[in-house]
Amino acid sequence: MNSAQRHQLPMGFRAAGVCAGIKGRGSKLDLALLVSDRPASAAGVFTTNRVQAPCVLYTRERVRAGKLQALVINSGSANACTGEQGMRDTQQMALWTAAQLNVPAELVAVASTGVVGVPLPMPRIQAGIEQAVTGLGPDHVAQAAEAIMTTDTHAKLASTHVKLPGCARVQVSAIAKGSGMIHPNLATMLAFVMTDAAVPCELLQAMVRQAADVSFNMISVDGDTSTNDMVVALANGAAMTEPVQAGSADAQALQQALDHVLIDLAKQIARDGEGATKLLEVHVEQAASVEDARRAARAVVRSNLVKAAVFGEDANWGRVIVAMGNSGADWDPAKVDLFLGDLQVVRAGAGMVFDEERARAILHQPTVEIRARLHQGHAHATAWGCDLTYDYVKINADYRT
Amino acid sequence: MNSAQRHQLPMGFRAAGVCAGIKGRGSKLDLALLVSDRPASAAGVFTTNRVQAPCVLYTRERVRAGKLQALVINSGSANACTGEQGMRDTQQMALWTAAQLNVPAELVAVASTGVVGVPLPMPRIQAGIEQAVTGLGPDHVAQAAEAIMTTDTHAKLASTHVKLPGCARVQVSAIAKGSGMIHPNLATMLAFVMTDAAVPCELLQAMVRQAADVSFNMISVDGDTSTNDMVVALANGAAMTEPVQAGSADAQALQQALDHVLIDLAKQIARDGEGATKLLEVHVEQAASVEDARRAARAVVRSNLVKAAVFGEDANWGRVIVAMGNSGADWDPAKVDLFLGDLQVVRAGAGMVFDEERARAILHQPTVEIRARLHQGHAHATAWGCDLTYDYVKINADYRT
Repeated sequence: MNSAQRHQLPMGFRAAGVCAGIKGRGSKLDLALLVSDRPASAAGVFTTNRVQAPCVLYTRERVRAGKLQALVINSGSANACTGEQGMRDTQQMALWTAAQLNVPAELVAVASTGVVGVPLPMPRIQAGIEQAVTGLGPDHVAQAAEAIMTTDTHAKLASTHVKLPGCARVQVSAIAKGSGMIHPNLATMLAFVMTDAAVPCELLQAMVRQAADVSFNMISVDGDTSTNDMVVALANGAAMTEPVQAGSADAQALQQALDHVLIDLAKQIARDGEGATKLLEVHVEQAASVEDARRAARAVVRSNLVKAAVFGEDANWGRVIVAMGNSGADWDPAKVDLFLGDLQVVRAGAGMVFDEERARAILHQPTVEIRARLHQGHAHATAWGCDLTYDYVKINADYRT
Repeated sequence: MNSAQRHQLPMGFRAAGVCAGIKGRGSKLDLALLVSDRPASAAGVFTTNRVQAPCVLYTRERVRAGKLQALVINSGSANACTGEQGMRDTQQMALWTAAQLNVPAELVAVASTGVVGVPLPMPRIQAGIEQAVTGLGPDHVAQAAEAIMTTDTHAKLASTHVKLPGCARVQVSAIAKGSGMIHPNLATMLAFVMTDAAVPCELLQAMVRQAADVSFNMISVDGDTSTNDMVVALANGAAMTEPVQAGSADAQALQQALDHVLIDLAKQIARDGEGATKLLEVHVEQAASVEDARRAARAVVRSNLVKAAVFGEDANWGRVIVAMGNSGADWDPAKVDLFLGDLQVVRAGAGMVFDEERARAILHQPTVEIRARLHQGHAHATAWGCDLTYDYVKINADYRT
């Protein structure tokens, strides 16, 4: 990400983040708006939780139609488990936003994040939307990123430029939030992707799904998946005239840019896990299949025992083996090699004598890498997580108060 | 459990627990022996982790043959991920025990628990076995229960007498250990069940499986399942002449006694979860199937977010709904009722206004009950867990040191 371009959106997009008072009487930003100057191709992936907030049901329908022009997002309340009033409030948010922007209501999507079970303060939301529309700007994306935060300790943005082989120069930018309840298959995690590439909505959907599988679906903070998660992407085509074709070199280059931006955000989210002091990066190599590699890697970043050992900088590699053993992945315990950073601790399934001081130094780094080599095949995967700390417990013991 | 009979084993059983020095130079008990005066019917259930310690592989084979007379158990080292030496050491433990007791080696089973990846200190084990054989007694079961502990804060025993309809009066007694790494499908959890009932080994196997499904498979401390877990049951028939028949009233009565003893131990384990201050008891009622009820109940006791909220005595019921939504169970979010103790907080899927002070008082109890009524059918299940505390993190951040 080029820092000079950090806060500039792709062509044709504007953003705003305002304080609507949803989070209380402080000055925290809590309402964001992302707008394209023209209808954009839309794609999205959504929570797999059986309980889905009204905004998820609503936005999934809007995305299914393939076109969107604006996204309105509030933090402070998830508007989930709020009965029939919840869906009426979500629809009202879309209507107010559409009226203020003078765009058709069906081109507005809605997202909410925060406490479950509390109705939205609708008068504040209405005033916030008016204020956000007034404040829209091509360089206000940082405010939007801040306005979607809950327990995040910092705003999460990523952006990249890519010169497509077909000659267009396009930008992919995204903001995300997520800190607790992060888990594979999306978990109180919101991400909004904007690009000025022109992409048919079916292709955009396939590309977002693929990018989510190697990024947001490979992170875990605490194993729970929320009622409100979504990744929504808009491609408005402001930078090029001809749309990207499926299977083309342009599509490949754009996919790489998309993967890059979403992995960047996924790692930011994992590192900012509630109470986290370290990013945990787990590579599983030489697996029989990508699915096996993913399962094994995710099981390690999800294990409380591994996470607590990383916090304590204790080279308790047995817990890594145990977690992979529980993962459902196909592997042979008698063949596995295990490394902490570049220090081998297990060869062919048996523990080795290793330098404890060196292990402790590796575990003391802000990013801890664990590498398992399964000797089963050629597939690999990487998952990201964080350590389990006193502060995680503290934050979650009284989130509501 | 009648306290007068607390420490008396069923007829024909003796036990010992000694300090072999496996846990270091202190005076902690770390080697246990359970012996029947005659070959007993044997049954067992074992860890589902792909990585299985040599003692699991070894004892599963012994149990498969249907007869056992002695169990030797060490704590302090799990003897897992110890290469080929690990299996040789397990076999050697059985051989030494058999020689000292003068019973056939194939009637001796072995269990180990503790740190993964460290070889057993075999000279100490040998001396410990000799000492244990000398110290065997019908009332030494408390020492045996203490000798199998790792991070447990107290020994776990349960016992009951039952008068079978066929007139025999029999006893079922068991000891267990488990505190961290506890999870459905057994997790660094050991339990050894002894009864003086006469039960054919096939029937005993079915009965143990059923009892484990409603007890140890319904508890969770941290979601990981270990390499070493096992439940092994011995029925020596010392109290009766005719064996219990499958499908008989005697079998039903004995099953109830077995369920009772194992649920008692499972609750002891959950309450003694690492760092726990509270027992969490989750009832799922009116589910479409027992499997749905079990999945939903287990997902709640497994959720870090629920567990941290219980620790903080915060009535954040949304996390219960979220956990059930991730469980894979079949239920309708628009129908669910939710209760904390006897206080209803959700009706038909929507949050209710409730007395926060009363909720906090309920969450302040040493046992916190959560009840979800799904309105889908007639099945129910109960799961047990504990809260997630600073001490859980502390214990697991430096378990090895």
